[in-house]
Amino acid sequence: MPNITEFDTIAAISTPVGEGAISIVRLSGSEAITIANQVTSGVDLTQVASHTINYGHVMDPKSQQVLDEVMISVMRAPKTFTREDVVEINTHGGIMATNLVLQTLIGQGARLAEPGEFTKRAFLNGRIDLTQAESVMDLIRAKTDKAMHQAVQQLDGSLQHLIKHLRQEIMDVLGQVEVNIDYPEYDTDEITTQMLLEKAQAVSQQIEQLLQTAQAGQIMNSGLKTAIIGKPNVGKSSLLNVLAQKQRAIVTDIAGTTRDVIEQTANVAGIPLQLIDTAGIHETTDQIEQLGVDRSLQSLQTADLILLVVDSSRPLDATDQRLFQLTQEQKRLVIVNKQDLAPAWDSAALPLTADDLTPVIISATQKSGIDQIAAQIKQLFFQGIETSQTTAVVTNARQVGLLQQAQQSLADVMSGIQAQMPIDLVQIDMTNCWNTLGEITGETAPDELITQLFSQFCLGK
Amino acid sequence: MPNITEFDTIAAISTPVGEGAISIVRLSGSEAITIANQVTSGVDLTQVASHTINYGHVMDPKSQQVLDEVMISVMRAPKTFTREDVVEINTHGGIMATNLVLQTLIGQGARLAEPGEFTKRAFLNGRIDLTQAESVMDLIRAKTDKAMHQAVQQLDGSLQHLIKHLRQEIMDVLGQVEVNIDYPEYDTDEITTQMLLEKAQAVSQQIEQLLQTAQAGQIMNSGLKTAIIGKPNVGKSSLLNVLAQKQRAIVTDIAGTTRDVIEQTANVAGIPLQLIDTAGIHETTDQIEQLGVDRSLQSLQTADLILLVVDSSRPLDATDQRLFQLTQEQKRLVIVNKQDLAPAWDSAALPLTADDLTPVIISATQKSGIDQIAAQIKQLFFQGIETSQTTAVVTNARQVGLLQQAQQSLADVMSGIQAQMPIDLVQIDMTNCWNTLGEITGETAPDELITQLFSQFCLGK
Repeated sequence: MPNITEFDTIAAISTPVGEGAISIVRLSGSEAITIANQVTSGVDLTQVASHTINYGHVMDPKSQQVLDEVMISVMRAPKTFTREDVVEINTHGGIMATNLVLQTLIGQGARLAEPGEFTKRAFLNGRIDLTQAESVMDLIRAKTDKAMHQAVQQLDGSLQHLIKHLRQEIMDVLGQVEVNIDYPEYDTDEITTQMLLEKAQAVSQQIEQLLQTAQAGQIMNSGLKTAIIGKPNVGKSSLLNVLAQKQRAIVTDIAGTTRDVIEQTANVAGIPLQLIDTAGIHETTDQIEQLGVDRSLQSLQTADLILLVVDSSRPLDATDQRLFQLTQEQKRLVIVNKQDLAPAWDSAALPLTADDLTPVIISATQKSGIDQIAAQIKQLFFQGIETSQTTAVVTNARQVGLLQQAQQSLADVMSGIQAQMPIDLVQIDMTNCWNTLGEITGETAPDELITQLFSQFCLGK
Repeated sequence: MPNITEFDTIAAISTPVGEGAISIVRLSGSEAITIANQVTSGVDLTQVASHTINYGHVMDPKSQQVLDEVMISVMRAPKTFTREDVVEINTHGGIMATNLVLQTLIGQGARLAEPGEFTKRAFLNGRIDLTQAESVMDLIRAKTDKAMHQAVQQLDGSLQHLIKHLRQEIMDVLGQVEVNIDYPEYDTDEITTQMLLEKAQAVSQQIEQLLQTAQAGQIMNSGLKTAIIGKPNVGKSSLLNVLAQKQRAIVTDIAGTTRDVIEQTANVAGIPLQLIDTAGIHETTDQIEQLGVDRSLQSLQTADLILLVVDSSRPLDATDQRLFQLTQEQKRLVIVNKQDLAPAWDSAALPLTADDLTPVIISATQKSGIDQIAAQIKQLFFQGIETSQTTAVVTNARQVGLLQQAQQSLADVMSGIQAQMPIDLVQIDMTNCWNTLGEITGETAPDELITQLFSQFCLGK
């Protein structure tokens, strides 16, 4: 675990900027309390107890003009977000006052924080590891409650603990190998290699399990790019509305302002569906044959999921057939709509492939059968992997890449042993695995990676 | 001062909703701590000291799922914003997590707060008066630093104190009149009426002074609707850019996201100029004669201020003359641009009226003379009234209306005395004045007014 490093004192507005009721200007660093105290009247912040909230005013030190009536939270290291001294000034929330408070702090020697710099310090000072830092970002960006739960869980360190456990096991076996090399009289080569092989197999198995969670984890975070297609009047818009409504009900009941943030996303049983605009395809399905090179069709091919809607009350026609054919290589769900009307054909008539799941029979207007869509999407993408409260989940491409790399090192260990390579060469592959796993938590991550990772954060976090 | 009333417990998100670093969910009411404690793990909020910040997790009480890692501020009545128990939960700042925390609190019996309801409680519980509540809103909406300072000052209660002082003086004299009526042996009618007259005159004078600050106060808050006009190529756009640039420099250095909020506003020495789109007039100045009934010209007539730009490098022509004539009834500032080029005419040639101030000579491209524009605007609107740190300022139409009404009651007092009306009738007018002044601070304000006033606040304030 890294030691607490002495950094300069940073400041930023940590709430979204706007005409809100409260805005927070946050300071972190060894000078945080001193600097805040220089611009505060009504309370001596250097004397107050840690983790207290203090009423006061922020003053311009030059003009002695009051900038705002504020509540000032003083939190002394190390029990803080950054493990440094932290001061949070809650202003009355206007753009102008909040900016002026920040500028005044900067005038007293604080530096404007870079995006993610508070969280970066929490990492550099050993309070959180990289997987937890990433989960902070995932949490902020979560579009559904399930995605949020996944992030919260990772914030608690479940992935970090598993990775640390695996690294410890590797380190233990490497230590034993070392002993056996140094004191060959205690053991034979054969036992040493056997030990290495068993450990490599065991760790590899656990990484494999972890990788199996990756698809689900990433989908939860980023959502599935989803296209709803079908010939005219099969009920695509009705389906879209039904799917999107659930989402709106969750968010906009309370915060009317958030609607546009999540527009175009449907929350289907916690899975965020990013709905692709396929207006172009809809309008031109009559001439679907001419669409081969159409741009809309290309965007269709980038979809993670196709919801192919057919109408049970009208006979299947050439357009339906063509849409089945165009999407047969993709993950798709066939949705048979209008079950409230008299059927015009039997479900055996659908040109399904072996990969297709059972079509979902719905009535979009009567909102029946909708839950079954979620069940089938889970079946398609989560393949029985349910993210439970106790399992570590891999949630992003960085983690997946490093796990695959670690897996490769373990494969090298195993093939090296089989090829009877010298034990010290096998040791190198095992050490590589240990290092690669360390990059996931950040224990062995290069500086550039860390800089790049935190720059994706929002300002003030 | 009203007593502390027992209200139900309210909750709201008090930061602008968005992907920020921190969001605050605020609770206020006698059950605030109990309700927050029901959804919190890791800390017993009912046992912690007041004004402390506590680390913990918000849990869904049903599923026992962790919703977020949070910092919880507990502030017990009466030293709080609302004078009730207040709990502020600082979440990690995502839309989803913050909403779920709020929903969970509502599930435990908190009620979603109405806009401005926290501030309304601060008022109803006697912590602030209506002028201070209005200044909270002004502070949040302030578009320039000067406007902000004015709001902060009023938040400190300067207007409230002056009004309370005036009411006390009226009450004192009314008390004395009462004594004199009840015990006529102590005094004569003449001395009583003299006392009333003197007090009415004195209070009236102070109200007059206050009303003189009203224009400046309202301008600071709401800005001046400003139209920049002039014939083609006199440099209107350059001037607009110079004026608007200063504003951007103040705000966008730090918060890039706020730009659109203040677009169309120029901060000229702290005075917010709301720039009216006069594109229509610009394009058609060549045919200015035909413009008499034009819609653009009508919008011109609603402007508080006209910046009439002329070009010193080209001869004044009929269009210039026509623009002078069209705006001669309005508050205007004549700006002579292009002083960097050779002059084509003498300033004596300008068709100024007696109301015009000295024209400002500038070069918009070289940014010279710009400060003089601010000085002249102050001259035009502030007429020597400088909002100092100690003066109470009237900042909105509600306050102005009530002051004028109080002034009328005092005039009635004075004319009543002159007409030798019975003292008890004069007393009624004096009491009306006392009541009207009480409406400004809210001491005698009707419920509907209070409801209407707070409904203009943002959610969570």
